[in-house]
Amino acid sequence: MDMTEKMIERKTVFEGRIINVYNDTVVLPDGKHSTREVVEHHGGVCVAALTERNTLLFVRQFRYPYGRVLLELPAGKLEKGEEPLFAGLRELEEECGVVAEKVIPMGEVYPTVAYCTEIIHLYLALGLKKTCQHLDEGEFLSVEEIELSKAVELVMNGEIADSKTVALVLKTARLVEEGKI
Amino acid sequence: MDMTEKMIERKTVFEGRIINVYNDTVVLPDGKHSTREVVEHHGGVCVAALTERNTLLFVRQFRYPYGRVLLELPAGKLEKGEEPLFAGLRELEEECGVVAEKVIPMGEVYPTVAYCTEIIHLYLALGLKKTCQHLDEGEFLSVEEIELSKAVELVMNGEIADSKTVALVLKTARLVEEGKI
Repeated sequence: MDMTEKMIERKTVFEGRIINVYNDTVVLPDGKHSTREVVEHHGGVCVAALTERNTLLFVRQFRYPYGRVLLELPAGKLEKGEEPLFAGLRELEEECGVVAEKVIPMGEVYPTVAYCTEIIHLYLALGLKKTCQHLDEGEFLSVEEIELSKAVELVMNGEIADSKTVALVLKTARLVEEGKI
Repeated sequence: MDMTEKMIERKTVFEGRIINVYNDTVVLPDGKHSTREVVEHHGGVCVAALTERNTLLFVRQFRYPYGRVLLELPAGKLEKGEEPLFAGLRELEEECGVVAEKVIPMGEVYPTVAYCTEIIHLYLALGLKKTCQHLDEGEFLSVEEIELSKAVELVMNGEIADSKTVALVLKTARLVEEGKI
């Protein structure tokens, strides 16, 4: 069965700094009409920086939509058309003050598939060297080094809930446990 | 350091069927002003239904923001104020035509923490019994049974990218591998 939904009208309801929002009218597979609310975002990047001590670099950052500080792997949004790997290395150096000798692509996550276009690109960074942190204006965060096994525990017990971080910590742990890194 | 950002003005820019969108003005920790774009969503639920054959029930569904069919664990959105466990069991029966004797909470994921309030509640369902599928009007999907080990492979090679599904498949696999289920 062809499950495609075809847009027949697009209303732009908001054009913001980081998102645009559309209210589309679509034709469903059965020919009926419905609406689809779409949040457009240029995409993001998230990096697991694994040290030789088998620790990961995390950031603690206030997340306004939840009104609290969350523990996450370093991440950021892509500028329009920016190459994800480049953005990942930039965010890693800006937020954590390290550069990486080797970077392994770890796939993508689609954070919330019903209404958002965002794709988050995941990377594993190895061979880390210290440079210095240089945060964007208006960016406030603290860096924390956590053992990989402890990070898995924090994911499993729910203390880490950010979706990109959950995905990338568990993917990284699996590769390490399988001896593939 | 107190990293809290305080709202001083809220502009409602869109009120939709599934999301509301706000453009807030906030005070940053250094006293400067900035804006925060916020997508408000009532939250969702996602269920890993694990059979006695060590398979999981998946759904294939057209996802309009990406313009293609994605492979996901059964899921749905909460009605305002709805109890997540109840919603999870409802979605599982509607989409896959099964009920569960035992349900284990598997934590939450925050899909996209920079601009969205959504929380997705994760559950593992065991002791499945067949009833019948009854989809909502305008809902089109097909059900597929996939071995847990194969599902992990699809997550690791990137064929499964939906964030709630990635999180819940890898969490479930870890519990099974550790002999906790």
